[in-house]
Amino acid sequence: MAVRFIDKLLGTTRQNNSLLCIGLDPDLDLLPKVKALDFNKAIIDATVDLVCAYKPNLAFYQVLSSKGISLLESTIKYIPEGIPIICDAKYGDIGNTAKVYAEAIFSTLGFDAVTINPYLGLDSIEPFINYRDRGVFVLCRTSNPGAADFQSLSCATNLALYEVVAQKAKEWNIYGNIGLVVGATYPEELRQIRQLCPEMPLLIPGIGAQGGDLTLAVSYGVDAQGEKAIINVSRQVLYASQKEDFAEAARHQAKQLRDQINSCLASRSEVK
Amino acid sequence: MAVRFIDKLLGTTRQNNSLLCIGLDPDLDLLPKVKALDFNKAIIDATVDLVCAYKPNLAFYQVLSSKGISLLESTIKYIPEGIPIICDAKYGDIGNTAKVYAEAIFSTLGFDAVTINPYLGLDSIEPFINYRDRGVFVLCRTSNPGAADFQSLSCATNLALYEVVAQKAKEWNIYGNIGLVVGATYPEELRQIRQLCPEMPLLIPGIGAQGGDLTLAVSYGVDAQGEKAIINVSRQVLYASQKEDFAEAARHQAKQLRDQINSCLASRSEVK
Repeated sequence: MAVRFIDKLLGTTRQNNSLLCIGLDPDLDLLPKVKALDFNKAIIDATVDLVCAYKPNLAFYQVLSSKGISLLESTIKYIPEGIPIICDAKYGDIGNTAKVYAEAIFSTLGFDAVTINPYLGLDSIEPFINYRDRGVFVLCRTSNPGAADFQSLSCATNLALYEVVAQKAKEWNIYGNIGLVVGATYPEELRQIRQLCPEMPLLIPGIGAQGGDLTLAVSYGVDAQGEKAIINVSRQVLYASQKEDFAEAARHQAKQLRDQINSCLASRSEVK
Repeated sequence: MAVRFIDKLLGTTRQNNSLLCIGLDPDLDLLPKVKALDFNKAIIDATVDLVCAYKPNLAFYQVLSSKGISLLESTIKYIPEGIPIICDAKYGDIGNTAKVYAEAIFSTLGFDAVTINPYLGLDSIEPFINYRDRGVFVLCRTSNPGAADFQSLSCATNLALYEVVAQKAKEWNIYGNIGLVVGATYPEELRQIRQLCPEMPLLIPGIGAQGGDLTLAVSYGVDAQGEKAIINVSRQVLYASQKEDFAEAARHQAKQLRDQINSCLASRSEVK
């Protein structure tokens, strides 16, 4: 069996002393004057010693059609071995189709982990967790304003839907490769979910452009060892400058974020 | 403004006297000895006068990497103008990203409609419905076994989650371009949702390989005019034969299904 996702993640977390994940989302409306692949390569070069993982969101590649998929493949190939790559696809389809998606993402493209939408239930998740060396992040409490529309619904069990999702994910975690997506924009929910799932890796978007609180995200998101929280930032790092110095500016921003996260970690006992 | 999705749908429904939609899902494990594009073209040629719409599921194209996206583009281009094409993508992402997906699916690829996962709430759906001439099918009650895991959860309002989704979709339907996905494998839920949303188009998978009851799907799924139900079948038509006569066999199967649907329609007053 290949290296397990969680071991790969802890490896880079420790080696780079970092909980920072960078979302590799080349948005044509925001890109400096450079080709998308050169942009991705420059961002990777500038941040490779500062991150625990990279997370490309499929949307920004799909919009470029077949060229986008080639761009994604070249980007994956360019990321040094050993750094885990999370595909932000938010898949959710029936078992038969989920199997095909799992093959696309893990076998064809070679990602280490993927994000999954829970709405379709267990048979939509199973084909992914069956790849035991890969990670599967189930959307629990997402970072966007609409999250409340359904995820906050109170269920007959007196639990909100996102809490039921967290419980089910725990129950389904027979291979120990499930994690949860919890937005930094909802710190109370994050705290609660970390208590319910003390050992799961949490993928935490919502810092930066979305306005989530970094101190609370770190304090509530990490496990007892101060690890297994993947703090994702995309736009704030990628487009720190839209001029020629974009890579340098991205590195500066990423370094600052990583160090801020580490200060939060150092002082988290006080916050608690 | 271009022709609205719903008008395009009613156009083919009436012209071909058909509520049948064929899922164009070229599964390499099941494909007869023929290239995927030739397969799709042969299926389209054989069924073009028998369907109200086609529905490619992105999974079967993504697994083929960049070649798959070219295959999808060529397939879309080959389908005669006037026949609506629904992209089964089940997207669900935060507003900023949903906007990029909407552009990918409607502008870049030119689809007439798309399927959307509601778990992320309104801001994940808005960018799609803002394309007012396109259709947006929100997953309500899916056809798979895992559907019950979350969709059946009873909410504090005494409604099941899928009922809340249907209500919200109705509320959000300001441009009249929202529809719902409801699996034929859950006929009671289908009946209930049709009562709640008497005018929405319903995309109904689950007939054929998944075992849904066709008579109930038609009887409960159509609107008062006996329209706006899109009965999707994929494997049962596509792989009716895996030999050289596959296109002929697909046509035979599609014709039989269309005619069965029409008999159900004719006798539905008795079923009710």
